[in-house]
Amino acid sequence: MRYTILIECPDAKGLIHAITGVIHGNQANIISNHEFVEHNGNRFFMRTEIEGEVDKEKVKKEFAAVLPSDSSIFIAEKRKKRIVILVTREHHCLGELLIRNQFDELNASVLAVIGNHENLANFTAQFSIPFHTISHDGKSREVHEKELLNAIEPYAPDYIILAKYMRILSPGFIAGFPNRIINIHHSFLPAFVGGNPYRQAYERGVKIIGATAHFVNDNLDEGPIIVQQVIPTDHSHSAQEMSQMGRDVEKITLAKALKLVFDDRIFVNGNKTIIFD
Amino acid sequence: MRYTILIECPDAKGLIHAITGVIHGNQANIISNHEFVEHNGNRFFMRTEIEGEVDKEKVKKEFAAVLPSDSSIFIAEKRKKRIVILVTREHHCLGELLIRNQFDELNASVLAVIGNHENLANFTAQFSIPFHTISHDGKSREVHEKELLNAIEPYAPDYIILAKYMRILSPGFIAGFPNRIINIHHSFLPAFVGGNPYRQAYERGVKIIGATAHFVNDNLDEGPIIVQQVIPTDHSHSAQEMSQMGRDVEKITLAKALKLVFDDRIFVNGNKTIIFD
Amino acid sequence: MRYTILIECPDAKGLIHAITGVIHGNQANIISNHEFVEHNGNRFFMRTEIEGEVDKEKVKKEFAAVLPSDSSIFIAEKRKKRIVILVTREHHCLGELLIRNQFDELNASVLAVIGNHENLANFTAQFSIPFHTISHDGKSREVHEKELLNAIEPYAPDYIILAKYMRILSPGFIAGFPNRIINIHHSFLPAFVGGNPYRQAYERGVKIIGATAHFVNDNLDEGPIIVQQVIPTDHSHSAQEMSQMGRDVEKITLAKALKLVFDDRIFVNGNKTIIFD
Amino acid sequence: MRYTILIECPDAKGLIHAITGVIHGNQANIISNHEFVEHNGNRFFMRTEIEGEVDKEKVKKEFAAVLPSDSSIFIAEKRKKRIVILVTREHHCLGELLIRNQFDELNASVLAVIGNHENLANFTAQFSIPFHTISHDGKSREVHEKELLNAIEPYAPDYIILAKYMRILSPGFIAGFPNRIINIHHSFLPAFVGGNPYRQAYERGVKIIGATAHFVNDNLDEGPIIVQQVIPTDHSHSAQEMSQMGRDVEKITLAKALKLVFDDRIFVNGNKTIIFD
Repeated sequence: MRYTILIECPDAKGLIHAITGVIHGNQANIISNHEFVEHNGNRFFMRTEIEGEVDKEKVKKEFAAVLPSDSSIFIAEKRKKRIVILVTREHHCLGELLIRNQFDELNASVLAVIGNHENLANFTAQFSIPFHTISHDGKSREVHEKELLNAIEPYAPDYIILAKYMRILSPGFIAGFPNRIINIHHSFLPAFVGGNPYRQAYERGVKIIGATAHFVNDNLDEGPIIVQQVIPTDHSHSAQEMSQMGRDVEKITLAKALKLVFDDRIFVNGNKTIIFD
Repeated sequence: MRYTILIECPDAKGLIHAITGVIHGNQANIISNHEFVEHNGNRFFMRTEIEGEVDKEKVKKEFAAVLPSDSSIFIAEKRKKRIVILVTREHHCLGELLIRNQFDELNASVLAVIGNHENLANFTAQFSIPFHTISHDGKSREVHEKELLNAIEPYAPDYIILAKYMRILSPGFIAGFPNRIINIHHSFLPAFVGGNPYRQAYERGVKIIGATAHFVNDNLDEGPIIVQQVIPTDHSHSAQEMSQMGRDVEKITLAKALKLVFDDRIFVNGNKTIIFD
Repeated sequence: MRYTILIECPDAKGLIHAITGVIHGNQANIISNHEFVEHNGNRFFMRTEIEGEVDKEKVKKEFAAVLPSDSSIFIAEKRKKRIVILVTREHHCLGELLIRNQFDELNASVLAVIGNHENLANFTAQFSIPFHTISHDGKSREVHEKELLNAIEPYAPDYIILAKYMRILSPGFIAGFPNRIINIHHSFLPAFVGGNPYRQAYERGVKIIGATAHFVNDNLDEGPIIVQQVIPTDHSHSAQEMSQMGRDVEKITLAKALKLVFDDRIFVNGNKTIIFD
Repeated sequence: MRYTILIECPDAKGLIHAITGVIHGNQANIISNHEFVEHNGNRFFMRTEIEGEVDKEKVKKEFAAVLPSDSSIFIAEKRKKRIVILVTREHHCLGELLIRNQFDELNASVLAVIGNHENLANFTAQFSIPFHTISHDGKSREVHEKELLNAIEPYAPDYIILAKYMRILSPGFIAGFPNRIINIHHSFLPAFVGGNPYRQAYERGVKIIGATAHFVNDNLDEGPIIVQQVIPTDHSHSAQEMSQMGRDVEKITLAKALKLVFDDRIFVNGNKTIIFD
């Protein structure tokens, strides 16, 4: 059996020795190991993959015994995550995820797709995945989000993926899924926050456009960044052409971010990420 | 003899035919040719390199005769540009330009370097280029800029290069050199305008940092962008390390931009550039 | 109506003037225009998009009248190309093309998919595209290729796309589709020609891997290159992980190449391409 | 005092615990730590930076006591490396290193530059670094290399940098500096080994060109790769233009590789590198 261990605590001498001592004492083998010390905040982060027949709760208690009292300790069997995807009208990120899901390349299971329009229903059905249309039309945000929640909750997803879901979620909704909602924003954040980033990029005359996959927190487009990628552009591209070109980088950026998330390779540290890949 | 022709005018049928007719009629040969129509603004842009013994003024008149009345027509022998470089304390962009200048790779002649500190004086002297220290210390912006102008004007430069010159130039100063001042900004604009962009990038936790070479106009960091380049970063880099990593991309970005500028490959169209490379 | 014009001929003075004169004389408007002179071979290449109601045959004759006798002149209405896709076992390039086809982003129509294995039959069916299994098992190359041809010919495709088709096609087969077969090779050619490029890349310890989309000619992996893209790798990636990582760059590289091909933006010049994008 | 520890040995359970136990027992603090297991070869690699007042020899003995008998153990104070640079005619890589050396950005001291031509003598003198011209003209390789050695040895360099040194060194010469000679090759190896890689790239019509920094071993261009970088090219670039464009990527690639080497971040594992950055 393989386990992933994530430990975060104040930095101190001897942490690695103490942690690996627990692992060693439980006859487990370390497959890979990464540490990082954020010297500004004096925080220690460690991710370890181990192999062995261990009692998770026992190991966790032994870690707690050798670590500072305010440590965060996560230990879990490696397993596929459960996800629900939210979309609006665009197919490219959804298609990327559905194909990866079908061929078992996502390290996750797509349980359902929810759209505030119905235009992707048939497309989703081609992959034999349930699609729920939950229109926002004529509804308050509160009512619409309540309906979304009602649709999502039966699936008990580990993560909610906003695959070009173009509506803003309320802080209340987001608070229900801390660091469990991932969005793909179609710009190189923090450039061009908000709507119509390709139009903004066109108007500004930038020579590179990009995409940003990030966790969603209270403030739109300001959550911890996971992956960013860029492509060159020039004067000959209209805003619409930039948008088309951007699709390729959006979908690959989202897929790369999800691979990291689903493999438990990310610590969220304030508004930033620490990624061991 | 080689000439570069730059023509900008309202778009119309038959422009290329008319323009090449003038060139053909003057027995010149077209070495390379680029056109672009900005369909939004209905503007036509054309850059042509020709070879032949032509009378510039005669050709210009013939162009004017076949083009709309509000056309902009530029025709000039290919020649090395004359430049003055402004610096503050950092050497990397300056060093890049001085070495290229020494080995004749810049398509320009560095006439002088002006610093508001003196720490790069000896370094510049190693390359046998005049260095003027014009401290801003204890002076009003007006007085300081007047001294700068007095130092610059005798060189009659085609372009002023801000090679990490860290003081803001006044609109009045800039107005004296329209589209003739080029700056290297140490971020991927429009992300992180203003001061300390690497600190800002570090705080935001971005995964890519970059540099932007642009023409300087009234508003700081908002002039027409010429070249942008990026490099990846991650959580393990401090703001200071990002700054060090960024030097390489800054100097290469500036050098690429200057090559385009000095080769007359750029049209400034409002706040954007059209580049034929 | 829009037309694309491709002209290739020996370089001479006045070509652009003469060509645009024909266009102008036929009351057509030039939408975009690109020229290139290969000075080594003294060859002139020009691609023009025009808009207007023209008589193609008349225009072609008028071009011929003003161009050198050994010119190549192509003029055609802009239209979607017809393609057949060949695959073996891998789904990622096929999936990319089927989704783009479904959402009309390919500038082509996928008429059929042919596999030498049947494992992608159901996947193709999800997109309502015909799939033909033509196993090579126990057949000579000659017999197998004859069967392929029999399956392909009824579709009269403009292009055959090898979307990770892992068998070598004979010169005779290829000769039937000159510059009309496009392959995606899973390395940065000319590095790692032949089989198992990711294994080769792993063994060599390279720090960047890539993909190459190219026209197929007689010699395996040696046809004119259309698009190349790369991604970084390092010691921590096994050959298998490189192969997985490479899928993303392969499919995007192939899609970018096809966009250029289907939009008639490529001249094949000997073993090289001239691309106007 | 800071020390860098590099340990390589057969993989086994408990290695990290044992190694960090020695560090902990010597009251040193771990600043950063990286491990990697090459599962194919069952080799364990670990790089650790520690801070503390330790007795190097004592620590080394304690490591030896807890590690397998065939372990490689390196422990050294962090210090600037001593280097000698070999050049032929091109200035760009040399200039890059001389500027970094002058501003103390190289983590090394350039002791001398040796050229088989004298054209870079004055340039080197601008930086107050000794230059030795050791012409190969009319000499056997054996005699020439003997003269090179005589010039190099008094400097007792840690590393020899081939900054576009265009002559092939004999296996005998190389054997004297195992994993201590670093070369910059002007192609994306293993594409275009040997001479004139830009000419080869031009002839092949590739769309990306690159540079490779690598350790030099017996076989030309086949040593362990440290860093590779690439830039896009297209049909419009002549071989000479590619060569000019390539200079920027060559010098940055070499500088990046040297930073890793001089910071003791590289293990050479057979013909490959393991790099902890």
